[in-house]
Order: sequence, then structure tokens, then C-alpha cells
Amino acid sequence: MSAQANQPVDQPVAANLAKKLVAEGLGTAFLLAIVVGSGMMGENLAGGNMAIALLANTLSTGAGLTVLILVFGPISGGHFNPAVTLVDAWMGGLSKLESSAYVLVQVLGAFAGVAAAHLMFDEELFFASTHVRAGPAQWWSEFVATFGLIGVIWACVRSRPGVVAFAVGLYISAAYWFTSSTSFANPAVTLARAASDTFAGIRPADVPGFLIAQVLAAFAATALFNWLYPNLAEGADRVVTRHD
Amino acid sequence: MSAQANQPVDQPVAANLAKKLVAEGLGTAFLLAIVVGSGMMGENLAGGNMAIALLANTLSTGAGLTVLILVFGPISGGHFNPAVTLVDAWMGGLSKLESSAYVLVQVLGAFAGVAAAHLMFDEELFFASTHVRAGPAQWWSEFVATFGLIGVIWACVRSRPGVVAFAVGLYISAAYWFTSSTSFANPAVTLARAASDTFAGIRPADVPGFLIAQVLAAFAATALFNWLYPNLAEGADRVVTRHD
Amino acid sequence: MSAQANQPVDQPVAANLAKKLVAEGLGTAFLLAIVVGSGMMGENLAGGNMAIALLANTLSTGAGLTVLILVFGPISGGHFNPAVTLVDAWMGGLSKLESSAYVLVQVLGAFAGVAAAHLMFDEELFFASTHVRAGPAQWWSEFVATFGLIGVIWACVRSRPGVVAFAVGLYISAAYWFTSSTSFANPAVTLARAASDTFAGIRPADVPGFLIAQVLAAFAATALFNWLYPNLAEGADRVVTRHD
Amino acid sequence: MSAQANQPVDQPVAANLAKKLVAEGLGTAFLLAIVVGSGMMGENLAGGNMAIALLANTLSTGAGLTVLILVFGPISGGHFNPAVTLVDAWMGGLSKLESSAYVLVQVLGAFAGVAAAHLMFDEELFFASTHVRAGPAQWWSEFVATFGLIGVIWACVRSRPGVVAFAVGLYISAAYWFTSSTSFANPAVTLARAASDTFAGIRPADVPGFLIAQVLAAFAATALFNWLYPNLAEGADRVVTRHD
Repeated sequence: MSAQANQPVDQPVAANLAKKLVAEGLGTAFLLAIVVGSGMMGENLAGGNMAIALLANTLSTGAGLTVLILVFGPISGGHFNPAVTLVDAWMGGLSKLESSAYVLVQVLGAFAGVAAAHLMFDEELFFASTHVRAGPAQWWSEFVATFGLIGVIWACVRSRPGVVAFAVGLYISAAYWFTSSTSFANPAVTLARAASDTFAGIRPADVPGFLIAQVLAAFAATALFNWLYPNLAEGADRVVTRHD
Repeated sequence: MSAQANQPVDQPVAANLAKKLVAEGLGTAFLLAIVVGSGMMGENLAGGNMAIALLANTLSTGAGLTVLILVFGPISGGHFNPAVTLVDAWMGGLSKLESSAYVLVQVLGAFAGVAAAHLMFDEELFFASTHVRAGPAQWWSEFVATFGLIGVIWACVRSRPGVVAFAVGLYISAAYWFTSSTSFANPAVTLARAASDTFAGIRPADVPGFLIAQVLAAFAATALFNWLYPNLAEGADRVVTRHD
Repeated sequence: MSAQANQPVDQPVAANLAKKLVAEGLGTAFLLAIVVGSGMMGENLAGGNMAIALLANTLSTGAGLTVLILVFGPISGGHFNPAVTLVDAWMGGLSKLESSAYVLVQVLGAFAGVAAAHLMFDEELFFASTHVRAGPAQWWSEFVATFGLIGVIWACVRSRPGVVAFAVGLYISAAYWFTSSTSFANPAVTLARAASDTFAGIRPADVPGFLIAQVLAAFAATALFNWLYPNLAEGADRVVTRHD
Repeated sequence: MSAQANQPVDQPVAANLAKKLVAEGLGTAFLLAIVVGSGMMGENLAGGNMAIALLANTLSTGAGLTVLILVFGPISGGHFNPAVTLVDAWMGGLSKLESSAYVLVQVLGAFAGVAAAHLMFDEELFFASTHVRAGPAQWWSEFVATFGLIGVIWACVRSRPGVVAFAVGLYISAAYWFTSSTSFANPAVTLARAASDTFAGIRPADVPGFLIAQVLAAFAATALFNWLYPNLAEGADRVVTRHD
């Protein structure tokens, strides 16, 4: 215990695939409950001032995402994001079977999280969003947002793994404000937010444009950071934090 | 001192039961003074915009709770919460005598903290709240909030004890916004907030529903994380941070 | 350099008294420039909503104070506060000569910082405040605020020195909101804020009540934490962070 | 990997000049996209309350800058600021050739970042600002802001390199509010913000006064901290964090 107490970073945990999938699913569900729930609370209380609602949404998402990575990262890597899982598989961190299962539970978890948030606020489980988010400026925003997110993850995993959870939470807090799309940067999040006609929603018709921009950016960022940081693949077995 | 300076986490402290109980009582008192005091200040200054009042309440509670765990954690574990004490006892971290004494001083401390806040703002020591917080959506909110809190504590205690204080503060900051109940997640806090007819109050009649949801969630989260993290009980002797 | 890079906490620095006094004076000046300057900026921009102005003031003070302790702590201990210097001397960390010199440069630095802020905002160097802050509720607030601050410092210095700067910044951020006095908790700050008729000011006639409450609380907290934490005096030579 | 996981600070990375210049250019571009983009988003949503817009701008810039230093610091030092590069060269950390190339890519990156932000918000690539920021109070503000920034960097690099990224982000968050100029504190940022007629802009005619104040302050702070901290030059090879 004394040796353990000295460790500034997470203790690795020997987890089988079942535990990893529960961690990814539950973590993504909590992430969506946070994004959608705090968006509703913010809009309910802000008296029409959307900047105050977005400040609340930002604070809750940034803090909550950091904690989720701390909690589930030692089990599953704490992806909660198919774009992260895809590039991690590309760099050799996950097998095809594992990455497919990860993406599946992430999407299921995301919808469960939206339903959980709607229940907390006395709304129906799902209802399609009417929030328009379309056009090249929005797609460019999602490209920039996701490029930055994937760059942050690879760089910190490689140079300073103990700080990944905090860096990701801070990055998303910044990106909610500096992109015009408020940085979805996550295909599972994008799909599930289409099922919520609230502050955080996105019209189903606008989802494909977001997904394409996100996936392109994830591969572009991985290619660049693979050049910037030598031996990036060595870090692949602990993206976001690590999984055995 | 040089060896000590190298330590990234708390130095354990040899504390007897008297010191532990003073730490729990004083810490819970400060926690309630923070929650109730910042709620009053926020409402007084926010000019009717409840989102701004809740942002202030969130900032103060999240930052303050982190500090309280840093300050009192090395003495008593820094529970300040009967739900935490209950599951810690369940996992073998505390004897029945100790846990009963903990809960007693937590509740007494919580009421003392409410009185201290009322004194700072020139109010009567206690007055029953009229703030309605009832119904299944609120109970589900308290279940989610407490489930998350207990999960955060067990996971971080097990994988990265030095980060517990920060993770708990960040989690509560997020949970104030993503749950419709604003996350009491603590039976002592719930009881004492019934004695404050202010921003942070809860009608006495609504207290039992909250307590039941909180206790059920604490046990559910402990059971799940006992499966997710191997040897969870090994961490029981340092929940929240540690007590020799 | 490799050994140094491994250190999670500050490298001690061999500093003579001249360097310590420059660090205390310049640090206290920056602290007051932050408190007064951000108060003016907040009030100028907030359009009459005092909660928004205080949120800005809180963010700037909490972040700035943390940084000042990181910057000057390794040289002088980073007190910037006669109440801290007094109890540090009481516990044997500073000689009478040193502590008198500390208090002197803290007060001079505080007034210089107020003048620096007024210059940045195109105001006169000094002008007496008319902001009333009187009565038992305010004195009790200052007692609670300072008791907490000194407790935070002693506990973290003793159990986890690397976190002191962050804990102090977080504590003050919380205390700006949960006390009705907005937590001056510092005699040098109190004196200098009497020379600023702005958001952060205090009427000169109300200063003595604040000073008395602050000094009483500092000694009370030191006595309590000297009982809670064994061998507290061993930490005295590195309050707030450390000096030689 | 186990040894690496123990490291609380960044792993140094062997990077050639090409990688360093890409890191400086891309990092400065992201910094400007953050500053300008979050300024536009804040102003668009804040309904005329400039304090709320500046709170959003502060949150995004402080969080984003911290992350950028974590991401690119191990490659290039994470300057993103000609004032930092100048004093680093003065103290022997960079050759004349390297520092000239750094400044060039910083300025180019800054303009690219402004263009990227304008694209995200459907604006023209560049348009000259009409935001007046002139007079001695503003110049004094920029002197104070830059003096503090350079002091923070040197002190933390020397005494606690692992905390530099966080200290810089916290400092800038504070400085946005306690200076009347909102702390540009960076010649590349100042030049590029002249090309944005938005919340974050500065009239081209007002740029020279800002640049002079910033450069003077950078040298003044370096001289003072070279006296305060012994052997400051030993830290020069890892400003802001390090570059092998």
C-alpha cells in the first residue's frame, strides 16, 4: 500500500472484456446524462441568456468527463468515443473484435444516458431533435474540435499519462466555446444527442456531416502526432489512460 | 523531510477516535456552511437569475469540498457523509462502533454548519424549509447522483488515491447541474438542509424519499465497483482518502 | 536535471532575507492588484449584476493566488498575509526580526498593489473606501474565513506540501461566496482595501473589527490543528510552502 | 512503461527543428483560434452582458492554453509567444537561428489561427479591428501582465517544472480580469488580433504601444527572477516546459 500510495498515476487493473464493456457502456451513459442533463438545467434556469446556459453546460461536462476518465480509464481506457476507439485500433491498441464491441456499447450507452437524463427531468425517454447544425462552417468546426481532441489524447498519453483525464476535460471545456458547433467531437455523442430535443440536441439530418468530419479529423490528427511524437504506437495500449 | 516532500499523496496520520470524530464533525459543519452560505450569497446577488446563483453555489461547493477532503482526509478519511460511512463499514473499513459515532457527529456537525451560515448572514439559527423537492424524477436523480459519487470514491481510492479529493469536488460540481435535484447525495446534508429556508433548502416532508434513494444507490454502486475493481476491500481502510 | 524533473513538489531555494522580503512585498502587491483590479473590471462590465461581478473577482483571485504561491513560495514561503506570518512565528518558523520585516513589506506591498491597479484603470492612486462592512455577522464571517484558511495551510503543509498552493486558491474561491464578508481573511489585504473606493473596498472605520477577528481566528485554528496533527511545528519551516 | 508511468512530469522528446517549428506554429494557431473563437461565441450568446462574454473567453483561453502547453511543450517548449522566445534566447536556451524561426512561425501560426476561427463562425478570413486600446493605462496594464507571465514561467520552470502548464493557464485566467487591457501579453497574439474586428480585436494603430510594453516587461521580469532564483539559466533549456 505504501508503494501504491507513491504512484502519481493510475494503477493498472487486470480487467476482462466483460468488465471493459461495462465500463465503456456505463461511462458513455454517464457522459450523455451529463451533457444532456446539464444542458436542460442550464436552459431551465438561465432566463433566456444562452451564454449562461452554455457556461453551466461547459462546467458540468468538463468536470464530469475528467472524473469519468479517472473512474473507468484504468478498466477500459475510458474512450466513451468511437473516434478514439477507431484510431486506437488503427495504431494496434485494440483488436477488431474488441473495437467493434467497444463502439457498440458506446452507442447503446449513449442512448441509455440520454434516456436517464430525460427521466431525471420528467421528459419522455427519446424525442427527435429539431436543432439545426448544418453547413461547412459547422463541419469545419467539428473537424477542428476532433483534431484537437485526438491530438491532446495522443500527446499526453505519450508524454505524461497521469494528466490525460485533466487535459481532456480542460480541452473540451475550451472547445465548447471556441468552435461554432460547441464541439461534439464524438460520433456516439452525436447520434444520441439527435434523440434529445433540448439545448444539447442536433437534428437527425445533420448527423452524417458531423460524423464524417469527426472521423476524418481523428485519422488526420493521429497521422500528424505519429510524426511529431516518436513511437506513438507504444502508447496505444493505454489510450485514453490504459487497459491492462 | 526530503522523503516526505517527494510524496505526491497524503501522509497518513496516526489519529485516535476523538481526533477522527472532531475531523468528521468540523468537516461536515464547514461543508454545510459552504453549501448553505454560498446559496444565500448567490441568491442575494444574482438579481433573480437562478442559473447564476447555482453557478456560484457550484463553484463554492466543488472547491470547498475538495479542500475539506485534503484537510481532514488524512485524519478521518474525510467522509462527511453517512452514505460513505455505511458502505465503508460494509466493506470492512470501519467497525460498527466507529461508523455509528461517525454518523452521529456528521449529523450534529451538519446542523451546526447550517447555524453557522445563518449567523454569518444575520438569519435565525434554524427555520424549516418550504422548498418542494418530491416525486420519482427527483428520487431517480438522487439515485443517479449518489451512485456516481460512491463509484467515484471507490474507483479513485483503488486506482489513484492522491486524486480522490479533486475527483469528488469535480464530480459534485458536475452533478449540481446534470441532476434535477442538484445532487444532495448525502443523508446528513439532506437532513440539515431541511432546517434552512433558503436557496439550498428542502421541505422536511421530502427528506425520506431522498434518504432512501441515497442509501440504495450507495449499496448498488459498491456492489458494482466491487465486481469492476478486484480487491476493492483492500481500499476500504482509506475511504475517502485514508485513516491509518 | 533528471532527478529534479521527478520532483512533484517545489525545489527548495537558498534565499537570503533580502530576496525573501522582495518576494513577500512583490507577491502581496500582485495579490492586491488582482483583488482590486478584477473587482473593478467585474463591476465595470457586469451591467449591475453583482453576482457576475463577484464570480469574475473570485475566478481571478483564486487562480491568481494559487500562481503567486507557486512563484514566490519557494523563496519566502508565500505568506502575503500577516496572520500567516504571526502564527508561523508562534510555531517557531520565523524569528521575531524576520516576522516583523515580513509584516512591514506585506503592508507596503499591499498598498503598492492597490495603486498599481488604480493606475491600470485610470483612477487616482488612493481614495478612501465608503463600503460599509460592519456588525457581528461580518466579524463572525471573518473569524470563520480566517479559521478555515489557517487550518487549510497547516493541514496541507503537514500532510501534502505539494498541494498547498492549489488548496489555498480553491479555499479562497469557496470562501468569497460562503461568508457574508467575502473573506478578506488577511490584515494586509484589509488595510489596503480601505484605500480603494471600488467593488473590493472597506470603510476605514470597519477595519479594526476585521483585523481582530482575523488574528483571533488564526491563533484558534493553529491551536486546534496543533492538536489534530501531531508535530505540527515540524511543518513550520515551510509555511506556506517552504523557505530554506 | 512502468518507469514512465511513475513520472509526474513530461517525458522529454528528441525533436528536430522541423518538428519544433510545426509544434510552435500549430500551437500558436490553436491559441488564436481559441482566443478569437471563444470571444465571438461569448459575444454572440451573452445578450450584451460583456462580463459574461469575458468569463467565457477567460474559461476557454485558460483551459485551452494549459492543454496546448501540455501537448506541444515536450516538443518545442510550448512558447507560442515571441516575448518568451526572446528572453529564452537571451538566457541561452535557444540559438539566434532557432529563435528567429520560432518567432516567424509563431506570427504565421497566429494569423492562421485567426483565419481558422473566422471560418468556423462564417466570417471573412481577415478584417482589420476597430477596437481602440490606447493610452498609458493600457500600456501599464500590458507591462504588468507580461511581467507577471514571464515571472510565472521562469519561477515554475526553475522550482517545479511539472506545474508550468497549469500555472500559465491560471495566470492568464486571472490576468484577463485584473488588467484593464485584458492581458494580451504576447506580441504574436497582439499582431494577429489586429486582423479580427471582433470581441478580441485591437486597432492596428494601437499595436506598437502594446508590443513595446510587452518586450520591456519580458526583459525586466527576466532580470528580476535571475536575481531571485539562483542559476536561472540552468532552466533555460526547458522554457516553457523543455525541448531536449
